[in-house]
Amino acid sequence: MKGPRAAVETARSAAEAARLARRASRKLALLSGEERNRALEAAAQSLERNLAAILQANAEDLRAAQGLVRTGEITQAMLARLRVDEEAVSGMAEKVRSVARLADPLGRTLSRTELDQGLVLSKETCPLGVVAVVFESRPDVVPQVASLALKSGNAILLKGGREAAASNRVLGSLWQEALAGCGLPEGAAGMLATRSDVQELLALDRDVDLLVPRGGKDFVAAISRQSRIPVLGHGAGVCHVYVHERADLEKARRIVLDAKVDYPAACNAAETLLVDAAVAGRFLPAMVRALSEAGVEVRGCERTRAIVGPEAARAAAPDDWGAEYGDLVLAVRVVDDADQAIAHIHEYGSSHTEAIVTEDAAAADRFLDEVDAAGVYHNASTRFADGYRYGLGAEVGISNGKLHARGPMGLEGLTTYKYKLRGSGQTAGDYKRGRRFTHRPL
Amino acid sequence: MKGPRAAVETARSAAEAARLARRASRKLALLSGEERNRALEAAAQSLERNLAAILQANAEDLRAAQGLVRTGEITQAMLARLRVDEEAVSGMAEKVRSVARLADPLGRTLSRTELDQGLVLSKETCPLGVVAVVFESRPDVVPQVASLALKSGNAILLKGGREAAASNRVLGSLWQEALAGCGLPEGAAGMLATRSDVQELLALDRDVDLLVPRGGKDFVAAISRQSRIPVLGHGAGVCHVYVHERADLEKARRIVLDAKVDYPAACNAAETLLVDAAVAGRFLPAMVRALSEAGVEVRGCERTRAIVGPEAARAAAPDDWGAEYGDLVLAVRVVDDADQAIAHIHEYGSSHTEAIVTEDAAAADRFLDEVDAAGVYHNASTRFADGYRYGLGAEVGISNGKLHARGPMGLEGLTTYKYKLRGSGQTAGDYKRGRRFTHRPL
Repeated sequence: MKGPRAAVETARSAAEAARLARRASRKLALLSGEERNRALEAAAQSLERNLAAILQANAEDLRAAQGLVRTGEITQAMLARLRVDEEAVSGMAEKVRSVARLADPLGRTLSRTELDQGLVLSKETCPLGVVAVVFESRPDVVPQVASLALKSGNAILLKGGREAAASNRVLGSLWQEALAGCGLPEGAAGMLATRSDVQELLALDRDVDLLVPRGGKDFVAAISRQSRIPVLGHGAGVCHVYVHERADLEKARRIVLDAKVDYPAACNAAETLLVDAAVAGRFLPAMVRALSEAGVEVRGCERTRAIVGPEAARAAAPDDWGAEYGDLVLAVRVVDDADQAIAHIHEYGSSHTEAIVTEDAAAADRFLDEVDAAGVYHNASTRFADGYRYGLGAEVGISNGKLHARGPMGLEGLTTYKYKLRGSGQTAGDYKRGRRFTHRPL
Repeated sequence: MKGPRAAVETARSAAEAARLARRASRKLALLSGEERNRALEAAAQSLERNLAAILQANAEDLRAAQGLVRTGEITQAMLARLRVDEEAVSGMAEKVRSVARLADPLGRTLSRTELDQGLVLSKETCPLGVVAVVFESRPDVVPQVASLALKSGNAILLKGGREAAASNRVLGSLWQEALAGCGLPEGAAGMLATRSDVQELLALDRDVDLLVPRGGKDFVAAISRQSRIPVLGHGAGVCHVYVHERADLEKARRIVLDAKVDYPAACNAAETLLVDAAVAGRFLPAMVRALSEAGVEVRGCERTRAIVGPEAARAAAPDDWGAEYGDLVLAVRVVDDADQAIAHIHEYGSSHTEAIVTEDAAAADRFLDEVDAAGVYHNASTRFADGYRYGLGAEVGISNGKLHARGPMGLEGLTTYKYKLRGSGQTAGDYKRGRRFTHRPL
């Protein structure tokens, strides 16, 4: 590791980093899959080889962060996510290699059509160009996102949180050096360091094709409002578990507990439990007891409280429906039937991930067809909504929007396509003067 | 046609129309392909049956528009696009039927993965939900866009220009009646009538999933800036034709003429001609003569003017490069080689459609791979960039962005996907306690 080089790379303005990234992206798009994989392997090895430097930088961040925890500027949970140990570094390297092993997302022919004799249209995947990701805390985002970008032939701009500044700087420099060592262009992976870099970035729509903010709802909303670059990111994760009258109640109990307790801060954690009135009396008392034992505060509707007793569940206020607690709190509502459950989800959900628990296949199919969300689940925890669990290798982020990428966004979300038309001198006028299109799929 | 009904439908506020459209979209998404096609056929028949009413309304618009031409509020070209005759109405009906004949875009399984035994993830296409299209002049946009929306299971909100108010009103009412006659929900195709409706629309991101503005660059830019709904539309069409040193010069002449003259107001018309220095002396004099004869004003670089003579080409100013004339004007630049041509295109182009004319297959491949645009063409006119010519049936619009839909946007641009996960009680915690994912493609 050469310190000065790292310093130069991060001292650049966002505009200059973006310009370099755009230039690099032209070359990255032309690399073969083998060349991209070779660079990924070099980066993985560099992470392993430089374990000590990574741990040292991380220790520096942790020391500073403890001060921030004391002053209340960051939470204990953020501190925990910041920590990197030897196992975490091996994990980073392994994830880079798993991305290298994924199928090449570039140069795939999505369709080919003969428009006329000697006039063939093909639709082929290609990189977006330059992707910027703004994230908080976890330093392992650096190799994860950078490897997805490289695999898909994109240049990347990364801006992490200041609490992980030293860790990110080292990880970024190692990444840049590994790529440079493979002959990849300067600017292929740029690191931004300051908040003003992000402000500057938002206006750089000429040189940046996609911006992915990873973080809290307000952070993502603020970025979206101000950015001239297209933004993909999740605004909110208000996920529901709906226990249908024909549910296996033991499955329901396990799924609800997992969806709420496994990682309450995640966007795919459940925030509201809906229970059919027909089974509420049998299901809710034990469920609420189990939730309480796991430290979950329950906020129930009238019917819920009548069943479990007012001391077991605080009365839900109107804004509990649709709330993203991100914490050990769960709203519980008894519904008449699937119609009411689906209407509730469409009214208060965020189209992220919605689950039904039932042994009735028709009820499950109906829920999966009718509910408008990125993920619709039958008898599984909402917590599966994740790029790694979906088999995408990793994720750049999770999109709540319906355009381009929906749900966990892996390599495919980092590609677009172009139409290649190969002719032999055809003009549009020819087809006004009698020539006919054949429009034959090839 | 019942007059009162039409009046009620257009008198609604945009918010109410959007709310109804959202409600309708939940039902449209569940219709079978056959049901959607039956409604399309009913709409086509209704157009044919109500020819007289359509022509009468159009005559009314034409009378009013002649006044607007006199006061300079609309151009002769807009007036021409406004006119609907008997043939145009048959054409509308025929296009609706051609959309019905396209493959069903819904319920297609894009991928299936076994995450673990008894835990299967499938990615399936579904409608976006509610799509709004704001357009100018041409009334045939109403059935064209409405049929793409219906085929793809979306509710649509349409707002046309005031110069076509009467034509749009009749076409919209006929459409609504035909759909209602097939039992489709109210609100499946809503018509907005006023400019304030559009202003109101821009904030309705809860009920509208996609907004497609069709019109001039400034119009699209203004909509994009103000909208809280995701916008897809083309900002600009600055297309180039590059005549390579190994071009067949007769092909080049025909392609350049077509690309400039066939329909200069279209976004896929050429705005700049780039010519390799090696053939400029042989190519440009005859080319510029042919362009002049076709009424095209040529604005040339120094080298161009040295070849064709200063009287044949006005000197190009710096802002001629990258200008979208939309008119019979063409900028001409002599370049050293493909490197310079590609650099020029990346500097000044709008990533819409770029063409190379050459008999050198390697040079063509290089151009098609390296140039970053929605359409990259070899030996064909840029004018082919169009949904109908591409075999997409029709187009909702042409997207210059790289996200979601790139280039002419047909049915596919109106769909998204959802992940359906079918399990048997799995929790994420199981996989922290030792269970392993299989991630097997099915």
